[in-house]
Amino acid sequence: MNNVAYFDNAATTFPKPEAVYTFMDGFYRECGVNVGRGQHKLAAKASALVEETRSLILNMLHCPNKKVVLTHTATEALNIILRGVPLADKQNVYISPFEHNAVTRVLAHLQEHYDISLHQLAVDKKTLSYDLEEIKDQFSENKPSLIVISHASNVCGLLAPIYEICDMAKGYESITVIDMCQTAGLVDTDLSCDIIDFAVFAGHKTMYGPLGVAGFVTNGRITPAPILYGGTGVDSANQSLPETIPERYEVASPNIMAIAGLNAAIKWLNETGIDNVFQREKKNHETLLSILQQYSNVKIIGGGRVDGMIGVVSCVFDGYSSDDVGRVLSNCNVAVRTGLHCAPFAHRFLGTFPAGTVRFSVSYFNNEEDFTKLDHALSLIAEG
Amino acid sequence: MNNVAYFDNAATTFPKPEAVYTFMDGFYRECGVNVGRGQHKLAAKASALVEETRSLILNMLHCPNKKVVLTHTATEALNIILRGVPLADKQNVYISPFEHNAVTRVLAHLQEHYDISLHQLAVDKKTLSYDLEEIKDQFSENKPSLIVISHASNVCGLLAPIYEICDMAKGYESITVIDMCQTAGLVDTDLSCDIIDFAVFAGHKTMYGPLGVAGFVTNGRITPAPILYGGTGVDSANQSLPETIPERYEVASPNIMAIAGLNAAIKWLNETGIDNVFQREKKNHETLLSILQQYSNVKIIGGGRVDGMIGVVSCVFDGYSSDDVGRVLSNCNVAVRTGLHCAPFAHRFLGTFPAGTVRFSVSYFNNEEDFTKLDHALSLIAEG
Repeated sequence: MNNVAYFDNAATTFPKPEAVYTFMDGFYRECGVNVGRGQHKLAAKASALVEETRSLILNMLHCPNKKVVLTHTATEALNIILRGVPLADKQNVYISPFEHNAVTRVLAHLQEHYDISLHQLAVDKKTLSYDLEEIKDQFSENKPSLIVISHASNVCGLLAPIYEICDMAKGYESITVIDMCQTAGLVDTDLSCDIIDFAVFAGHKTMYGPLGVAGFVTNGRITPAPILYGGTGVDSANQSLPETIPERYEVASPNIMAIAGLNAAIKWLNETGIDNVFQREKKNHETLLSILQQYSNVKIIGGGRVDGMIGVVSCVFDGYSSDDVGRVLSNCNVAVRTGLHCAPFAHRFLGTFPAGTVRFSVSYFNNEEDFTKLDHALSLIAEG
Repeated sequence: MNNVAYFDNAATTFPKPEAVYTFMDGFYRECGVNVGRGQHKLAAKASALVEETRSLILNMLHCPNKKVVLTHTATEALNIILRGVPLADKQNVYISPFEHNAVTRVLAHLQEHYDISLHQLAVDKKTLSYDLEEIKDQFSENKPSLIVISHASNVCGLLAPIYEICDMAKGYESITVIDMCQTAGLVDTDLSCDIIDFAVFAGHKTMYGPLGVAGFVTNGRITPAPILYGGTGVDSANQSLPETIPERYEVASPNIMAIAGLNAAIKWLNETGIDNVFQREKKNHETLLSILQQYSNVKIIGGGRVDGMIGVVSCVFDGYSSDDVGRVLSNCNVAVRTGLHCAPFAHRFLGTFPAGTVRFSVSYFNNEEDFTKLDHALSLIAEG
């Protein structure tokens, strides 16, 4: 069981850096208390850890003057933002063709209440690249009020030119939201600019932290209506939520264990160097592609390149369904994800709907043994 | 720092049973993957753990035929239920006088949208006990459509006669919700009956599990509208959430680490015996009361008894504000919580609003050394 070659890192990175496990366990044993809700030394120590973690996140994203809201999942963060920002009938909402159900299902729900028009940002299918000229025309024709872009697709790995698109959108005073679940901590990104209103991250993916902590970064100029109501540990007599950020959105007991893990993860990223982590991931991405490309029965969907991509590669196999391939790989102790990856729109765009794909996704930690196992498993499939 | 006498267990129990730390760390190291979202051996193992944990929860509550929805916090569970059940103008909503902001702030939000009347269930202030005769009259006068009762108050520890009240409410076809955050796993409770529609639990409190997992138990007859939209790992092509329970409410990546911890916690409860845990907690509760009662400058708010209570005791101190007391206790390495405990209505009822109280809450794990420290600290305060 321990010898699984893990290529499902886009779902959650695994394993984590040793420091994440060690620090999280140690901190939770020593100081597993309720942050901001007790007046004692352990609570103070836990609160200090939370504040340090906020700084680590903001510094990692080069925006120490912004604010970070910690949520329990990135889905919660996206729901807060997308359901809470001001929207009105007749407005145009733009998404990339690759959005996750954590975006599209929220927007589908909003469409039940608002007469909004949903548009997909233009991406050239042949070159698999965002078509900025065409997007300029799209915006000119239908003025954007809200845009949501996955910084990198969780299906095909394509990176979006977020600065260029957000800059154009800001020309129309659009609200701009970037989903960095597949890039925060991996692709060094400067959020100090004011053209990105909200950037969402998931602690347990490319940040190498644990499940249980996620959130978003904001300049605080747009304040979404909350979607969860409850105790905040501050201003308890008031039956409205506090107006201040992050308190307004941080209801319920903070997950100090997960926050401790994320704290250790970002310190590990800083010590290793974000660029070094990305380089290693690129190397593993290249190795993955070179192995996949050896098999003529394997068709790589989109890209097949490393430039402008992260290490997420979707494939279809001649004569095998994705599920069948997944089963054979599983029997060979190779872990992948098959199907739609909670992103049906991406598959519609890529021409792989409804069957889906076999998705291989690498991390910093994939090693030679993993790739040997993968190669062996693929050779078995090729032999039929 | 490690020698803190911890009396803030109502915020989160601390420490956890050793098995919780060990199993959680081991499982996350070995199998820290994304449940139900990958087709490989590790994902299958993680999924099996989740299903086993659901069974453990349902068996603990004697309702194996009900369903359990896992959320990230009890606040999320309460928001799903209270904001999702059908409500209409002119309906009557009953709450206990002790509800947490995770209930009252949600209801305050609902009151912005519905013309609902909020009533407090009758509790006799002198005897600090629910007045069932009076509640019968209340229901007769204003038919209940929704009732929400904290099974035990997080401020004064009073247990509510949930069966009697829910039975009466069901006579009016009311929806019944029990908040078991302070009782699940502590007070052996049989939820096999059909008079309780929803029972909410927090894994990290009396269940002795970690932060990051909570949820609710339901017979599935009333299906609240969801409040969070996103990926569910199933039926991904559908832009509506699945209709099935628990999938409808379990969006985003499940927190397998926290679920592993809760799994180990319930097994520890079963091995130790829930009744034995409650007996030990009662013994610690008695010891706490006997110490507090030695000091004439300490006034116990409500109760001052063990019967019909859990080990949560609120106090005020002659000549000292709660915050001042908290500061002295903290300097003596005694951890308590001071203020309103996110439950301002409870303090209004108990006559301790807005100053709040000093809350002492015990667990199975408090020991003689803790009580010696507490006694010493209280003697310092008594000496002024």
